[in-house]
This record gives sequence, structure tokens and C-alpha cells, in this order.
Amino acid sequence: MTAIWPDRDALCLLTDLYELTMAQAYWRQQRNDEAIFSLFFRVLPEQRQYAVACGQEYAAHLVSELRFPAEQVARLAELKQFQPEFLDWLAGFRFTGEIRTVPEGTLVFPHEPVLEVRAPVIQGQLLESLLMNYINLETLLASKASRVVDAAGGRPVMDFGMRRMHGLEAAWRGVRAYRVAGISGTSNVLASRDFDLPAQGTMAHSYIQAVGDERQAFLEYARLYPGTTLLVDTYDTLAAVDKVIGLVREEGIEVGAIRIDSGDLGALAKAARRRLDDAGLSGIRIVVSGGLDEWKVAKLVADGAPMDGFGVGTEMGSVADAPSLDFAYKLTEYGGEPRLKNAPGKPVYPGAKQVWRHHDASGMLAGDEITGIDEARDGEPLLREVIRDGRPVLPSPDPDQARERLSRERQSLPTALRGLTPHAPYPVRFSESLETLRRDTLARLAE
Amino acid sequence: MTAIWPDRDALCLLTDLYELTMAQAYWRQQRNDEAIFSLFFRVLPEQRQYAVACGQEYAAHLVSELRFPAEQVARLAELKQFQPEFLDWLAGFRFTGEIRTVPEGTLVFPHEPVLEVRAPVIQGQLLESLLMNYINLETLLASKASRVVDAAGGRPVMDFGMRRMHGLEAAWRGVRAYRVAGISGTSNVLASRDFDLPAQGTMAHSYIQAVGDERQAFLEYARLYPGTTLLVDTYDTLAAVDKVIGLVREEGIEVGAIRIDSGDLGALAKAARRRLDDAGLSGIRIVVSGGLDEWKVAKLVADGAPMDGFGVGTEMGSVADAPSLDFAYKLTEYGGEPRLKNAPGKPVYPGAKQVWRHHDASGMLAGDEITGIDEARDGEPLLREVIRDGRPVLPSPDPDQARERLSRERQSLPTALRGLTPHAPYPVRFSESLETLRRDTLARLAE
Repeated sequence: MTAIWPDRDALCLLTDLYELTMAQAYWRQQRNDEAIFSLFFRVLPEQRQYAVACGQEYAAHLVSELRFPAEQVARLAELKQFQPEFLDWLAGFRFTGEIRTVPEGTLVFPHEPVLEVRAPVIQGQLLESLLMNYINLETLLASKASRVVDAAGGRPVMDFGMRRMHGLEAAWRGVRAYRVAGISGTSNVLASRDFDLPAQGTMAHSYIQAVGDERQAFLEYARLYPGTTLLVDTYDTLAAVDKVIGLVREEGIEVGAIRIDSGDLGALAKAARRRLDDAGLSGIRIVVSGGLDEWKVAKLVADGAPMDGFGVGTEMGSVADAPSLDFAYKLTEYGGEPRLKNAPGKPVYPGAKQVWRHHDASGMLAGDEITGIDEARDGEPLLREVIRDGRPVLPSPDPDQARERLSRERQSLPTALRGLTPHAPYPVRFSESLETLRRDTLARLAE
Repeated sequence: MTAIWPDRDALCLLTDLYELTMAQAYWRQQRNDEAIFSLFFRVLPEQRQYAVACGQEYAAHLVSELRFPAEQVARLAELKQFQPEFLDWLAGFRFTGEIRTVPEGTLVFPHEPVLEVRAPVIQGQLLESLLMNYINLETLLASKASRVVDAAGGRPVMDFGMRRMHGLEAAWRGVRAYRVAGISGTSNVLASRDFDLPAQGTMAHSYIQAVGDERQAFLEYARLYPGTTLLVDTYDTLAAVDKVIGLVREEGIEVGAIRIDSGDLGALAKAARRRLDDAGLSGIRIVVSGGLDEWKVAKLVADGAPMDGFGVGTEMGSVADAPSLDFAYKLTEYGGEPRLKNAPGKPVYPGAKQVWRHHDASGMLAGDEITGIDEARDGEPLLREVIRDGRPVLPSPDPDQARERLSRERQSLPTALRGLTPHAPYPVRFSESLETLRRDTLARLAE
């Protein structure tokens, strides 16, 4: 049978080769002290105020299950770069370290660790490619979708993106991230079942064309699916609206909504709303789609266009304005000593950390402080243990909790940070101790 | 165990809901005449001259295996939109139609069908989401990678993109597309095994930092991996090059290449080349990486920078400049009659088609003509049957053949179309018969 995705067992080989060659080099030199690795991004994409951390708890659970089955180890051996004793070591691999993450659905800002690993360096190194790939996708999608949901101002947003997302896994797993972001439904049938979001959809232009007669197509469809959404822009949008009205009156069909997928969506929606209302059909909703992103949604909302929902696909699914995030996975401590690379413009702060989120008296977000892990602050500590001694200490993340968390945090953003364009960066500072430790470490490095 | 991707059996549910509701509506009305669906794009992303068709033959093979296993049909039933008799029909589904595609690795241009389905309309409709998702990803990646390979002017290009690609499937299956595009190796271990491309990689900065002493890190790594590539930009790039030279002389280590991942890559490579050559080490190659795309590669090549290879990740893997293609899957004929939607600026041409590629006397590409399927022309007909009566008539596509085809076609592009910015669109025209048929169909539609 033609392969679509790899065997579950092969997850261990979905990694960059150098993770494995470095692991063998550490192993060979018996260099396996405890290390801290930190996953964070340094800059936000243009026009963005925040990212929505997503996938990191799920990925931590994957790590706790990571094994190198014999069949996969045998495939590695084919590369002729690995010694039999190291391959034996891999065959017995299980993660024994600690992973701390911020909760899924948390707003995160530059330099804030989304996830930290404390483990023998070989183990921590081996996780890099998997964690980065896994967290990049869901954080990317949740961050974009959160903006679309926010722009829609309470109107439902539906995911129509499957056909333009990067493969079947992205279209499927993306729906988990979309649910966290507050998306109301998805056209993706399997994802709707697996991630418990309503499956939604209407009809395509091809259906109307194949039937040939638009009125007949509406009639048959609404009889089969009472309360359905009818697509009205195949030929002449307003003429089609009149057909819908005629059918409701003459044939008694039940129509839940009409969908407009092309043309001047705002003007057509207004005109359609007027005709429907004049016909006494104010219960029929209007859904629009077609090349929408957060900017277009916001403009339609601002213009007072009478939309009851938005179907959003390509722009949200391929994250056209920022199709990757700037995540890095950096060694910050080894054998109890701070480590960092001195790259101009790319500061790394040493050691294990905590992020403290501060709220003002009215509950609004007032700024974050990144401290060493042992520094105490008032405020909400964001990083907490998900995996200890290689085993989960928290259950698999609950998308509903994550969605509620995101919704609450988004509502608590100061006004200057709430729109689509940030007016000022969200205040994030490093503690004095971390600044001092970084200076001292760099000074030692320069000696 | 934590799910990573769906069961193979669930492929049938990885579709937009409306494909299934439309299918039931056709089925209910016994509207199941033969239809033609055509998959094509209308516009290229800015700055692009061509797309590289990829994934369409593989997808056609998937279609021939598509089934609705009982367990999946039961999940569909939970949606309470489908009648038991239709669900029974789905349980017995197999594709019985014909799929024609252009060969993988073919250069394609706006309006040219990449794939055409001829099947009873229910079947053709049910394939839409799967075909679009599947072909979008590989064509997107092959098209981008082809530009990078071309810009590198014969120097090897390595895929380092796993961490920023959209999920594990994209990072894995993308390597199949990269191989077609002419990429020389990949850091992705599993994909290198599954798609038979060399696995490549060096070391990360974290390794040097963990060891603490750069010279010691180089020494140990090169002893373990004779002929390896050493990463020289963790602290001071040229000082690190001197350490490499010293180690070769004093310790006799074997070094295949050095990699520079940050800073002014061109200037550093030139300076490093000079030091290596002066030390008599002209056999040590120089590989660069870090934020590269086709433009940066082309500039380094034009500047005469002494690179022996490029590692390319984020930009190629997330296709930052054009993260989706404008593919459409359109009904063009139903029951032997031409069908099309009259959308301003979005012309569709009716019926089943052929694309004829013309070469001039010197073998250069001279323009394409899109004709009806029954029109004969001199020239190379691009669309050929892959699936007949639901079964493959061609073997699974061979990436080597596809790569050779692409390489040959890219070499045959007229000079004006060969650079990174097109000076004129490649000439594609519709036959007189198609133009006439379209006019007549639109006129009938307007009656």
C-alpha cells in the first residue's frame, strides 16, 4: 500500500542527523552531565504582538514515550556512522529528565522559554528537532488563528484551510491548534472527530454547475439538509439570493444561512441582508469566505457588514504573512555551569528560568519578568513541570482549558496591544541576577 | 500512546465535509453522470516563472487505493447528516475512473492541467480535498527548491529545514519533492532512508558549548568521524579556522569541510578559503548555511564566494515568499456537456484537455498550447493516463526520472525565463477550438 506517513515506530528517526552524531560523540567521550536546553523565540513576525504557545505540552508527552525500536536502529546502522555499542545504547533509550512548559494557550513574548528540558546532555540534544518541528507548527497556527478570531469580534470563524495547508498532518493537527485559538468549526471531517470541533461545510460551486440549474440545486440540497447553508455566488449573487427567498416562500425549504465566496463581500452581504430582511427572513444568516485573513475580517466588521460568520482557509492555514516562527533550542547550562554562544544581536541568557506574569489591579497584563529558576516573585509563574523523571506528572493538555486561558489572556491585553498592529512591545525584562550572570559568563568566555 | 498522525485507514475522512454532503446529494438524486475535473493554478506567485509539478502521480496512486473502512464509516455516521444507504454505498466505494497527469518533475504554467479526473461525478467530487492538499505541498516545495538548486549553479544544496517545516509529514514527504528538485542531501534521517537521499549533517553550536573548549570539540569530533564537517562560527570564525588548520597539522585529523552558519558568509568564506589554501589544505571544502534562500545563494555565487555547498532550511521549507499555490479543482464537463463558472478574472475552459509542449530547433522550450483532448498537434503531449478503470497503468513515480525531467526542462528554459525574476511569461495559449467552446458555453449560460 502506498505510504502516506511513516510508521509510529519511526518517530525516533524523524530528526536531524547531527542530533544523533553529536549524541554518539557525547556518549563516546562519556560527556553526559546534566544540561538545560531552552526553547524560545527572539523576535515576533512583523505586525504581531504575541504568539500563542501551543503543542509544547503534547510534545512533552511524546518525548516521554520516545523509543528506538530495533527495526529503526537497524536502519540507522545502514548509515555506517554509528558504533554497535552506541546503537545498543539507543535501543535502550528512554527519556529520564524533566520538562517544564508554559500551559498551552499562553500568550508568549520574545525570549520567554516556552519549554525547558533538564536532562543528561545526550538526551536533551536528541529531542531538539522533534520539539522544534512539533511546537513550531501548532504555535504558528494558533498564533495566526487567534488574530482572526479576535478580529471577528465574537462572530464564529470556521477553518476551511485543508486544501492549502502543508500536507495532511498539518491540516489535521492544525485543528487542535485552531480549537485552542477559538475557532468554532472546521471543514476537516477527521480532525473534527479527533479534536472534537463541529464539522462544518456547505456546498461547492461545482455542485451547482453539475446540477445545471441553480434553483433546482438549492431545492434539492435544502430538502436533503434542512437548515443548510446555500452557496449563492456561482453566477449572480443577488439573483441567487432572490431564488433562495422564492424557494423558502414557495417550497417551504429550511435555509440556515447563505454563503458568499467572491466579489465585494461587504457590499454583497449588505444587499443580501436587506433582501432577506425585506422578505421577512431575518433568521437566515450570512457567511462569507474567499481569501479572508485577519485584516479583511477586521475591515468587514468595522464597516458594519452584516456577517454572521467567516470561513477562513488559505491565509490562516499557510500563515501567509509569517510561515515560520523564529524558535531556537539553546543549551544554557551544562554540568551546573552557565553556557551560551556569543552571537551579536542574538542574546541567550544562561541557566534554567522562570517567567513571572504580572497583572495590574484591574486584572490586565502588566508585563513579564524572566528570572533564574530559583528567584521568587509575586505574580504568576508560567513554567511548570510536565514531565519528571521521564514520566508525565500532568495529564495530556486539555484544549478547552487552553482555549479558556488564551481567551482570558487576550482579553487582558492592554488596548495598545490588542489591535492587529502593535503600538508598543509588551514589556518583558530579565531579572538583575540573570543580567549579571550573563555578563559574568560572557566575561569568562572572553578570557 | 499519544497520537502523532491518523491511522492509514482514516485517509478517507481527511476531506472537507462538503465533499461528502455533496456526494450524498448527487447519490440521492441519482445524479452520477461522468464528469471531468481539472486541477490547475491560474497565477504564479510573484517573481516565479514556473512551478514544478510534484505529487500528482503519487496522489493518483493513493486514489486507486482509497476505501471507506467500516470503522471510519461509523465515525461519519456520528455526524447525523448521512443516510444509512449512502453510508453503505461509501463502505463499498472504490474509484473506477481515469486519472491523467503530467509527469512529476514537469515545469507547469498557469491554466495547464496538472491532473484531470474523468469519473462519475460523485467519485470525482470526493477526491477534491485530498488531491489538492497532497499536490499543493509537494509542488510548492519542489518549485521553491528548484529555484535554490538553480541559483546554486551546480554546487550541492542540502535540506536543513525539518525544524521549521509544517509538521513531521511535511518535513518527511517534502524530501521526496526535494529529491525531484535536485537537492543533494537532507539532514532528515528517516526521510533520507525512505526517499533514498544521502543523510547529511555536521554539529551544532551546542556541542561546542557543552564541550567548552572549541579545539577539543573539533579534535574529538573529527577523530570519531574522519572527513566530517566542523562548525566554525560558535565564537570567532577565523580563529576557529586556524584551530582546524592547527589540528590537521599537529594531530593529523581528517576534515572534509568547515561550515559557516552566521556573519557575512561571503567575506568569511573568502577569508577562510585563503587561510586553508595558504596552509595547503585546499581539499577542505566550505559549506555555508543560515537564513539562505535562492536570492542569497545567487548573490554568493555571483560574488565568487568560494562555497562548495549550501545548507538551506527555513526559507525553502516554509516557502516563505509563497507558502501556498493557487490550485483550483474545477468541474469542466458533466454528462458530456461543458460546464464552467462565470467568474470575472477567473476563466475556466470546458472539457478534458491536453497540453502540448513545443521545442524549437535547438531543443529550447518554445511555448505550450492547451487543446481539447481530441485535438492533435505536433509537440510533446504532457498529460497521460496514470489510472484507468480505477487501477494504476503506470508504476509509482520514480523520483530519479522526475529529477532528470526537471533538470532537462529547466536547462531548456529560454534565458529570459531562467533567472530568478521572469522577464516575460512563458507563452501558453488555448487552442481556437477551446476558445470557441468557452465562448459558446458562456453564451448558453447567459441565456
